[in-house]
Amino acid sequence: MAGKAVVLLSGGLDSAVAAAIAVHEGFHVHALTVDYGQRHLRELDAAKGVAIALGVKVHRILRVDLAGFGGSALTDKSINVPEECPSEAIGTDIPATYVPARNTVLLGLGLSWAEALGADAVFIGAHSVDYSGYPDCRPEFLDAFRRVSALGTKRGVEGKPVSIEAPLIRMGKREIIERGKVLKVPFELTWSCYIGGKKACGKCDSCTIRLKAFAEAGMEDPIEYEQR
Amino acid sequence: MAGKAVVLLSGGLDSAVAAAIAVHEGFHVHALTVDYGQRHLRELDAAKGVAIALGVKVHRILRVDLAGFGGSALTDKSINVPEECPSEAIGTDIPATYVPARNTVLLGLGLSWAEALGADAVFIGAHSVDYSGYPDCRPEFLDAFRRVSALGTKRGVEGKPVSIEAPLIRMGKREIIERGKVLKVPFELTWSCYIGGKKACGKCDSCTIRLKAFAEAGMEDPIEYEQR
Repeated sequence: MAGKAVVLLSGGLDSAVAAAIAVHEGFHVHALTVDYGQRHLRELDAAKGVAIALGVKVHRILRVDLAGFGGSALTDKSINVPEECPSEAIGTDIPATYVPARNTVLLGLGLSWAEALGADAVFIGAHSVDYSGYPDCRPEFLDAFRRVSALGTKRGVEGKPVSIEAPLIRMGKREIIERGKVLKVPFELTWSCYIGGKKACGKCDSCTIRLKAFAEAGMEDPIEYEQR
Repeated sequence: MAGKAVVLLSGGLDSAVAAAIAVHEGFHVHALTVDYGQRHLRELDAAKGVAIALGVKVHRILRVDLAGFGGSALTDKSINVPEECPSEAIGTDIPATYVPARNTVLLGLGLSWAEALGADAVFIGAHSVDYSGYPDCRPEFLDAFRRVSALGTKRGVEGKPVSIEAPLIRMGKREIIERGKVLKVPFELTWSCYIGGKKACGKCDSCTIRLKAFAEAGMEDPIEYEQR
């Protein structure tokens, strides 16, 4: 029987699959959603729904005002979210939707809660095969953070560091969706769109990548779009 | 002329000296105080006073509820802060006042703000010569976090990572106080006590270490104590 794990749950598709994997592996999952001042709260509602659907008993939503720092299209209304980005251009550069040091902050918070709880692992839905362009989704970044966990915590010093689990890191987006299907992830509750209207826009980077992946998996994306 | 720097400013003596060093080096200092649910708010007032006295123009106080995670005598009222710890025992073990992964969280937030600002450095008042017993005050932890800065940020990928500056890391507590005196740090505004009454208790680990260091430096500590 596995012990406790903290899962970083954003409300998006990837972290929902990561959470389902942690549940499937037998961990007692404690979901952590960080409200860092995203442009819309739709993601937070999605995270709540996903946690309930996966049977997660403990779900904490923590407010941390990274938006006040600025510097990202996801939190700063003066920077436009790129739309209709041609798919070839995705991943050739770091996108405007990069939030400075976001995964370092999220993993740090997850690590703090995990150590306080006596949890053995922090799960994150990062992946880099269908390259997202985010530096903090790369295996080498996660390895660097593992050293931080080993050296910067009481548990690490005692020889049993909290492990940093990124079960999607070597998967392509299509494979993530296929794995999620097997694990009965409630895709209809997830939210990936960066724009945050009543329906997903279908045009931003995140919608584009998601729609392409569902198409490649031969599945219908169950959420509604303004346009596909 | 140095550029901008984010300085983690707690209200304690060490971070006040680190801030004075950053100012002295010519950085345009942006002070960051994280209100993580310490047992008392006295430290936050101290941080405000220190920032003003050092001429810091931008001071942000960010609320992050690590107290809700539990696991530390500094944030959890059910765990007692050790008092009258014999000085030989200080540093032989990780104290109850350790906050899980605290410096990882603080440095992550500092890094995020630094990158958003275009700042070149994050300053932290960590030191480990008069060994505090905190794993996340050690040079090897800071080196691990430097790799996180290099690999997990846009600036790092572009070859100019935000540097992590710990100017006190090789200093003993006495030397920190002597350096602070030269730089005219307003010691009377700083607050080190873990208990947080009207006057400093004079008995907790933090008061004990501070009083000993002032004595060794041949200086009078200007703050008031319940007992010395």
